[in-house]
Amino acid sequence: MEDLLKEINQFRDERDWRQYHSHKDLAISVSLEASELLENFQWKTDKEAVAVNKQNIQEEIADVYIYLMMLADDLDLDIKDIVRQKLTKNAEKYPVDEVHELNQKAVD
Amino acid sequence: MEDLLKEINQFRDERDWRQYHSHKDLAISVSLEASELLENFQWKTDKEAVAVNKQNIQEEIADVYIYLMMLADDLDLDIKDIVRQKLTKNAEKYPVDEVHELNQKAVD
Amino acid sequence: MEDLLKEINQFRDERDWRQYHSHKDLAISVSLEASELLENFQWKTDKEAVAVNKQNIQEEIADVYIYLMMLADDLDLDIKDIVRQKLTKNAEKYPVDEVHELNQKAVD
Amino acid sequence: MEDLLKEINQFRDERDWRQYHSHKDLAISVSLEASELLENFQWKTDKEAVAVNKQNIQEEIADVYIYLMMLADDLDLDIKDIVRQKLTKNAEKYPVDEVHELNQKAVD
Repeated sequence: MEDLLKEINQFRDERDWRQYHSHKDLAISVSLEASELLENFQWKTDKEAVAVNKQNIQEEIADVYIYLMMLADDLDLDIKDIVRQKLTKNAEKYPVDEVHELNQKAVD
Repeated sequence: MEDLLKEINQFRDERDWRQYHSHKDLAISVSLEASELLENFQWKTDKEAVAVNKQNIQEEIADVYIYLMMLADDLDLDIKDIVRQKLTKNAEKYPVDEVHELNQKAVD
Repeated sequence: MEDLLKEINQFRDERDWRQYHSHKDLAISVSLEASELLENFQWKTDKEAVAVNKQNIQEEIADVYIYLMMLADDLDLDIKDIVRQKLTKNAEKYPVDEVHELNQKAVD
Repeated sequence: MEDLLKEINQFRDERDWRQYHSHKDLAISVSLEASELLENFQWKTDKEAVAVNKQNIQEEIADVYIYLMMLADDLDLDIKDIVRQKLTKNAEKYPVDEVHELNQKAVD
């Protein structure tokens, strides 16, 4: 993971692109790439989307990841730390027992 | 990275949530969380956004990451592989020399 | 339509809000409100979404409309003119006869 | 406004497209077109965006409008009614006097 972040940063630093990377514009980029990812599923079922657009889906997932890692790194956030913190917070918000009850209700 | 993916999958499997995770709905979730991330920068400069919203920015980055990893995993995509492939493709599209010329033109 | 635009502009001018409305931030707002609209359909079928979220869907459609009209007006664009121009362009791109053939192929 | 809605509906009915227009997919389309609109402002100031992308900005505003009107119409919502209701609700949430105080504080 640290290696991958290094490769991403190397990519932008070789091109002197970090000067353009305001946090706000990187957040816009994450959102735009997420929309391009979603576009592959527009008017389609999962099966149709994967059959027709698998390569593009793969590339857009990579694009979202790349911009997200740039933004996290520029904010001095360690992705592992913040994901683990969020999972812990979500686990408190959605306790396993309560969720199973809700799942059950949804099908009753 | 593999550990983190395991923890994300464990989180949804303990709650039996994978049954709801169509690719299309996960792609929608990535896009919605990316918008919630961007919302922290609405009407604000970078400095203002970070001063007021740092904690929420951190959580939304984690949310985008979590849904993105779920989607990639459900599609049997290895995130390291697809990111490296995309960086290679981008490097061919934006050769270092040409980019430096463009950067220079932008300030001339 | 002109009346409605006047009411929208009156709303922001009474609050002296136009000073904050950069085009870029209004475009961000249109995108964020569109995501909040879409959020009503997350993990749901049309029927479920309308049953549970009709009131919120209605409000988010209004929010997208309000920001879109502000942006168009700030750019001196007449919405009727630009929509008609786009419909004409789309009609040339998707001729009725060709579309009917494609529709038919999709079910064959 | 009613005329414009009729022209939009005529466009999709001539192509028998209403059969594909689930509410969820239309909401996705509004969100995707809003992102394409926002893309014109990525890495740019307002002035740069308008100088380079005015024509595309205009077309994307029209696209957001077209899908938004389709969705509202399919849900039997009158756009004038729901926008006026939202403006009234917003006016209660943001009373003119309080907003002026907040505006003042922001510059103090």
